[in-house]
Amino acid sequence: MSKVSTKPPGGMRDFLPEDIARRRHVIDVIRRIYEAHGFQPLETPTIENLSTLLGKYGDEGDQLLYRILHRRDALARALALPEVREADLADQGLRYDLTVPLARVVANYDLPKFFKRYQIQPVWRADRPGRGRFREFYQCDVDITGTTSLIAEAEVCAAVAAVLTELGFRDFQIRLNHRELLRALIRAAGILSELEGTALVAIDKLDKIGREGVTAELGERSISADSAARLLDLLADPAEESGPAAAILALRGRIAADERGVQALDDLARLLDLLSRTPAAGHLRFSPDLARGLGYYTGAIFEIAVPDLAGSLGGGGRYDDLVGMFGKKQVPAVGFSLGLERILVVMEERGMFPPLPIGPQLLLCWQGVAEGDVLSVAARLRQQGLRVEVYPEAAKLGKQLGYADLPGVRAPFAAILGEDELRADQLTLKHLQSGRQERVAVAAARVALDAWT
Amino acid sequence: MSKVSTKPPGGMRDFLPEDIARRRHVIDVIRRIYEAHGFQPLETPTIENLSTLLGKYGDEGDQLLYRILHRRDALARALALPEVREADLADQGLRYDLTVPLARVVANYDLPKFFKRYQIQPVWRADRPGRGRFREFYQCDVDITGTTSLIAEAEVCAAVAAVLTELGFRDFQIRLNHRELLRALIRAAGILSELEGTALVAIDKLDKIGREGVTAELGERSISADSAARLLDLLADPAEESGPAAAILALRGRIAADERGVQALDDLARLLDLLSRTPAAGHLRFSPDLARGLGYYTGAIFEIAVPDLAGSLGGGGRYDDLVGMFGKKQVPAVGFSLGLERILVVMEERGMFPPLPIGPQLLLCWQGVAEGDVLSVAARLRQQGLRVEVYPEAAKLGKQLGYADLPGVRAPFAAILGEDELRADQLTLKHLQSGRQERVAVAAARVALDAWT
Repeated sequence: MSKVSTKPPGGMRDFLPEDIARRRHVIDVIRRIYEAHGFQPLETPTIENLSTLLGKYGDEGDQLLYRILHRRDALARALALPEVREADLADQGLRYDLTVPLARVVANYDLPKFFKRYQIQPVWRADRPGRGRFREFYQCDVDITGTTSLIAEAEVCAAVAAVLTELGFRDFQIRLNHRELLRALIRAAGILSELEGTALVAIDKLDKIGREGVTAELGERSISADSAARLLDLLADPAEESGPAAAILALRGRIAADERGVQALDDLARLLDLLSRTPAAGHLRFSPDLARGLGYYTGAIFEIAVPDLAGSLGGGGRYDDLVGMFGKKQVPAVGFSLGLERILVVMEERGMFPPLPIGPQLLLCWQGVAEGDVLSVAARLRQQGLRVEVYPEAAKLGKQLGYADLPGVRAPFAAILGEDELRADQLTLKHLQSGRQERVAVAAARVALDAWT
Repeated sequence: MSKVSTKPPGGMRDFLPEDIARRRHVIDVIRRIYEAHGFQPLETPTIENLSTLLGKYGDEGDQLLYRILHRRDALARALALPEVREADLADQGLRYDLTVPLARVVANYDLPKFFKRYQIQPVWRADRPGRGRFREFYQCDVDITGTTSLIAEAEVCAAVAAVLTELGFRDFQIRLNHRELLRALIRAAGILSELEGTALVAIDKLDKIGREGVTAELGERSISADSAARLLDLLADPAEESGPAAAILALRGRIAADERGVQALDDLARLLDLLSRTPAAGHLRFSPDLARGLGYYTGAIFEIAVPDLAGSLGGGGRYDDLVGMFGKKQVPAVGFSLGLERILVVMEERGMFPPLPIGPQLLLCWQGVAEGDVLSVAARLRQQGLRVEVYPEAAKLGKQLGYADLPGVRAPFAAILGEDELRADQLTLKHLQSGRQERVAVAAARVALDAWT
């Protein structure tokens, strides 16, 4: 036998039952709270056409896309070309986020004018793996399409704030900024409008590489040292002790009479006011240096920070032009995406999970009875709604009972079916931790077990 | 604006909220019943190494695998080769079934001796799409590893039978056969043992292409016309009016003293006896011509048939050598896989779904009040556990109420918040179908709504 690797590929993970219990706990909360906020579920395919995906995430995003290799004839045709390029070998790729597929769906179907959808699905990015960073990971998105009303911004922020609160987070911050404010600051720094996009990509790294790193990167992106220094001063977080309102006032001074910048600040002020009436109240911070990496944002942008995680738990913003990129209709939109894995990492490190029962409640052990009788009793226990595992082989009772206690099995109860019990249509129910046991009618097992726990 | 296709790729689908409601209904039942049968959840990554996948599904399977194109340096190296072949361009692919990943997991981790896992995840096959056949589809698997006991076969069959019964199916049949019986019949037909595998692939198509088709295909696979005719006679379903026991007796005559064949028939008889004590009772049929396409089966094989679907709702069997193919340990295993899409197709055509409430219970309409007040009331309604959508724009009340009735929104209730209501901390609750309306305290909205429905 030659050995084949049995590990999952790099950046990918297997989820054993205890992992699933924790993941499911978080997903169930997210789903319930998103639905309470009026969002309805959507799912889109894992594989999308590259024409849908390319050009939406910036150059870096395009390079991180997983592409599906052509098959059969299409592959043969590609390989017969005089010079084979990447673009000849694939026209489909894996879902990279949930926002672009939503935009495609909104462009494709007749949906309600205000489409409020949530979507909890994995996405794939061929990125360098790290703490809480994987190549396959789940995003949990809420979006509202069809309106430019700030109520939509407020509703997506309220929904994620309610989720985090329900999960037990107390110390999260929703950082807010506005793309139009960033543009105004870039203009105020004397940077040409055609360098706006590339400047934003550099600013987005402020958290990771600091002021010096960003200065260097702005230089590499053809921005003068003078403009870079001015921009970083303009972006600097004003002292916020006096609250977001004072911070907004400070920024107003920096952009002077830039009309779109002033409008952005007015919107942010109004949004902060609206959010103070929602579950996001007390978690808000205006952050003029927040940029968000993705190319498609056009208005308010958001990000969630907790003190003990370098990255964010999620982010989002307004993207009024993305649906229009499919060439069918213009539909404004705003959304927020929570990263499941980031949430799980923090919850695990902080011990935030409640007890999550998994596995069978009861291991059915048997001796001296026919296998058919064992299965028949198991069926009756399951009809009562009990989770029942049957010991699958003939073995000594002690061995069977010992099995129930093993890690990965951990059934709290055993039920013993012997000749005596079978004759009386009963079971001996045994609580494994205490050793306490009791004879009960098969038909009353659920009642007995509920009374016991 | 240039138009980009907004459809999902061929064989893939978007699931809108009503689709999700039906899918979730079926998945919830499957999960609950699988857990009642003592199975625990597992999830594996979408992307697997090709070394894990290749050679497990037969040649046809290998060709239907989705492969992930190499990126960057790996791709550049491959394209620099004098002659580029498929194998140079990819070393990862998409999950093709849930059984091979399970075998990899069992080989990789220290799990309980009897690992009972269920797994409900999508798989991908670059197959021709058709009715109930897609390129991305969900499998819902139960498997038991670590034992050769027939109780394991009985338990996986019992679990899927209980699922189908719970979903409302009454007329399904679990067809049973045994790979060792098929091999004995192939031997009895005078076919060389090295042609056994290829003969099985042809037999598997009996349902689709009939006796003549299979005869032709056996010829193409180097099997003599004489042997082909004898094999088809040996496989013929014996008249089954007198039940599976009589059918097994009839087959015993056809294989004479073939020892492994006799053992297989004994196992089938015992399995049928065990299954008669489970939820599978009354749904069993011994089908000597059932072959199952996949290469890895070694013992009993199963398939679920309903009268109104040409394909099967699911299938499975024993595969004692698959875990060993990873070269670490030999672990016997048996499993059953339900096809979610097939189940959904039949349930939709037969109208088997109960009413599945989706979407908001209540659209919050507002006029003459501040947006912050609207959001504050919405938060209080949601805290009561209500699913609440907020009309996001200022508009006439009639327009807002009309919106609640639209397809895709369909909120059964509207709650109206005007100046009067706000002052009294109340809402006007309106049942949209009857037009009946009532003023209630905001804090009592849930109670009022529950009493009303």
